Amino acid sequence: MLEANADWAARFPGSKPVRPAREVAVVACMDARMPLFGLLGLALGDAHVIRNAGGVITEDVIRSLTISQHLLGTREIVLVHHTQCGLQSTDDVAFADLVEQSTGRRPPWAARAFSDVDDDVRESIRLIQESPYLLSRQVRGTVYDVDSGRLREVE
Amino acid sequence: MLEANADWAARFPGSKPVRPAREVAVVACMDARMPLFGLLGLALGDAHVIRNAGGVITEDVIRSLTISQHLLGTREIVLVHHTQCGLQSTDDVAFADLVEQSTGRRPPWAARAFSDVDDDVRESIRLIQESPYLLSRQVRGTVYDVDSGRLREVE
Repeated sequence: MLEANADWAARFPGSKPVRPAREVAVVACMDARMPLFGLLGLALGDAHVIRNAGGVITEDVIRSLTISQHLLGTREIVLVHHTQCGLQSTDDVAFADLVEQSTGRRPPWAARAFSDVDDDVRESIRLIQESPYLLSRQVRGTVYDVDSGRLREVE
Repeated sequence: MLEANADWAARFPGSKPVRPAREVAVVACMDARMPLFGLLGLALGDAHVIRNAGGVITEDVIRSLTISQHLLGTREIVLVHHTQCGLQSTDDVAFADLVEQSTGRRPPWAARAFSDVDDDVRESIRLIQESPYLLSRQVRGTVYDVDSGRLREVE
């Protein structure tokens, strides 16, 4: 990665302001098949990108969104969940069992597994709309198809 | 973004497995100036990407790394912090004051502000090495210079 970065630095397009130009924060899954700048058409400096397992709304995501809005001026949120998520292949109890068997310790937090991706997007929208710390709750939810590269909005 | 995605889908390179090809999970800041696939030379499907404000190690990052390792086979962790982070321009008390003044509610969680970026990378490495839920604690920490595009490793 350090070697590949030398190529990037050689063609580096230049500095950008710390405040996202499009005033958007994207919340997405950590999935390796989603290069978000490419698949959303984002340019350098356009949007904050927050990612975790599942792209679910946790306290840490609310912390990040609160900083994004209060300190750095974003006012819209875009959620990107996706097809064939690893969190659809397990459930919270089975995952805690797996970790306990391998490490001897049972995690006190839930994996946040889910079954229906559209329902999980709607649940994320609901959690954002309930948060008291945000300045803006303008949010749109999408699902990315990892086999076609297509993004669709969840109504 | 939906329009830009149609262009992406038209030149979509094809499906990849859910398990990251390079068995790596990247933990980075949400900063808008860091398109991680580009600046680390990652190809589609190579690595999990976990991002939050500061790229700090929280319970949610440990949840994501635990899922990444136990369910999806990653065994190395790369941290990417950066110069001129928004979290270096505040402190936890000032940020809680700001949110309380704007929303009437004081957040119960800390912003996780920091002053020295190298120290913050070392603190992240320490927190990963202390986590009992991971299968591998092989971790390397880096700082990205947002003005030059260059990544350097923190010793």
